[in-house]
Amino acid sequence: MYNNFKSEIIYQDTFTVSPFAETKDLLIYDQRLHSFLSPHLPSWQYKYALEAGEDLKEFSTATKIIEKLCEYWGTSSSRQSRIIVCGGGSIGDFAGFFASILKRGVQLVQIPSTWLAAIDSAHGGKTGLNIHKIKNQLGTFYPAHQVYLFKDLLFYQPEERAQDAFGECLKMMLMGPIAWDDVNRRVQSDLFSFLWDQLPSAIEKKYQIVLEDPYELTGKRKWLNLGHTFGHVLESVTGKGHGLCVLQGLRFSLGWSVRRGYCSSPYADAIENFIHRSRVPVWQGPDFKELLIHSQLEKLLQADKKSQSDREIDFVFIGGPENVFVQKVKISDVIEEVSRQGWIIS
Amino acid sequence: MYNNFKSEIIYQDTFTVSPFAETKDLLIYDQRLHSFLSPHLPSWQYKYALEAGEDLKEFSTATKIIEKLCEYWGTSSSRQSRIIVCGGGSIGDFAGFFASILKRGVQLVQIPSTWLAAIDSAHGGKTGLNIHKIKNQLGTFYPAHQVYLFKDLLFYQPEERAQDAFGECLKMMLMGPIAWDDVNRRVQSDLFSFLWDQLPSAIEKKYQIVLEDPYELTGKRKWLNLGHTFGHVLESVTGKGHGLCVLQGLRFSLGWSVRRGYCSSPYADAIENFIHRSRVPVWQGPDFKELLIHSQLEKLLQADKKSQSDREIDFVFIGGPENVFVQKVKISDVIEEVSRQGWIIS
Repeated sequence: MYNNFKSEIIYQDTFTVSPFAETKDLLIYDQRLHSFLSPHLPSWQYKYALEAGEDLKEFSTATKIIEKLCEYWGTSSSRQSRIIVCGGGSIGDFAGFFASILKRGVQLVQIPSTWLAAIDSAHGGKTGLNIHKIKNQLGTFYPAHQVYLFKDLLFYQPEERAQDAFGECLKMMLMGPIAWDDVNRRVQSDLFSFLWDQLPSAIEKKYQIVLEDPYELTGKRKWLNLGHTFGHVLESVTGKGHGLCVLQGLRFSLGWSVRRGYCSSPYADAIENFIHRSRVPVWQGPDFKELLIHSQLEKLLQADKKSQSDREIDFVFIGGPENVFVQKVKISDVIEEVSRQGWIIS
Repeated sequence: MYNNFKSEIIYQDTFTVSPFAETKDLLIYDQRLHSFLSPHLPSWQYKYALEAGEDLKEFSTATKIIEKLCEYWGTSSSRQSRIIVCGGGSIGDFAGFFASILKRGVQLVQIPSTWLAAIDSAHGGKTGLNIHKIKNQLGTFYPAHQVYLFKDLLFYQPEERAQDAFGECLKMMLMGPIAWDDVNRRVQSDLFSFLWDQLPSAIEKKYQIVLEDPYELTGKRKWLNLGHTFGHVLESVTGKGHGLCVLQGLRFSLGWSVRRGYCSSPYADAIENFIHRSRVPVWQGPDFKELLIHSQLEKLLQADKKSQSDREIDFVFIGGPENVFVQKVKISDVIEEVSRQGWIIS
């Protein structure tokens, strides 16, 4: 058991195994990293490659792998052993869940390989598994003991991986002051370097929020849901990357915040201009409107884990610079706004 | 998520559903309690009967039931829902594990139906599942929010259930002062009433120890392992009740403590006399010696979860009144003592 929600964060330019290759530890890694990791793999006696993706997060699949891992490593491990996980969100979630229940909790070290995991999912101690594709029905609060961020590993990822992290990066930026000229210039010149430079402040802000509400009891952690209500809907119906959908969800929240008078147009324009300069793809409502029909939208919003009832959900609005806030809204009002923004056949 | 290790304990003479029959809650209960519970069952909209025993604790079985429970109740439940569990150790362990991972933790209310669960396993926040019969390989630390102790439910159990709790009761007694004349008189007259009267002090002592070391990190919780090292060996080879085996394990520790000069003979005699008056069955070594062969004993002791290495384990000795203590011992020394006490073909 490890319940210090402030993980130790270590930034390094080059991947190295020395801090965590101990004979009794287990390395779990994304099989796609095999060639990147292959010079280092002999350092681990126990290692296990997995195929990333939502299938791995399905409870029945995950528990079968947990049984295999227990057979492979269980009797060699002790409560002093560690699980080192090198991969993106789904592998990090799976390994975090496994670490949280093995011998009632062994230490977890996260080495995020995707920008999305590096900036968001490796931090904050949430693990989640799905039951019949209903997301995160099962899981634990189980923070990593350490998170290693290796520049060469993250830069090894394809461009789309960086684009997929941009939405979560922007989400965290909106919770603090922004020097628009500086960030516009940097994001336009190189998205990878921009993300790498933003990591420390984005991560720091996430931990500030998490530490105020580690177990999601006071409501503060709901701030982190900015862009996710409509983002999850798009993710479900399009199957596109989580981060790209969150970016769209963030723009949806921005548009609604302006219309309700919470957020000034110049601030919204500055955000849209910044997104434009990043060259991360955005979509317009009509691109998908054949997919978003009223009844489906209602069902997806009701299933949202932040839903408090069948008719209301907590929605995160943008109130201006350094200001996001949560407000209860009617699901019917969300649907009306989705329609108004041109995403739906009304 | 609920991580207050001091559960609220409620003692009542008569079973009543009023404190915990809310429409959104789930009742999980031992199917053997069906006739006892039947007048109350209509109070719950969601209820699920299970067959108790070690099979339920096998990970592959438990996860299949968890999937069924998610299908049955998952979408009707929220993080504000509670799981009410009425049963003994195996059902309490299963339900505690499920509560700890459902939506990253929902509230758990324990209603122990066996004396062993009432005095021990319902308290202290340990849940455990087995992998291929290796005990408690997977689990969580997840204390119950409340533990209800109903006198009529516990007195409804057969005599053997009370006998099976006597070892754990005695274990907790040894950690405090004992008025021998009083307890001898009471245990001789009625074991059920004796256990009921002992519950508050035994439970209070357990929480004192648990709160000093909730996550089993400082070593203090190892005190609770008194009688369990040799007890688990007997449990594995004989299949007899956990508590009866712990009582034997406690006597084994007592004999060894006397031989090593840690414990005076008069104190040991007082304990043995008290056990005798309880009329709880005890065995002599020769009863089982055909079962305990050297190689098997070594393997079982090495697999003990309190083992720190292949050659040493932590063993709990009795140092005299109000004094138990943990000491590292060689596995070979345990085997020698088992042989010396007549339990093994040397």
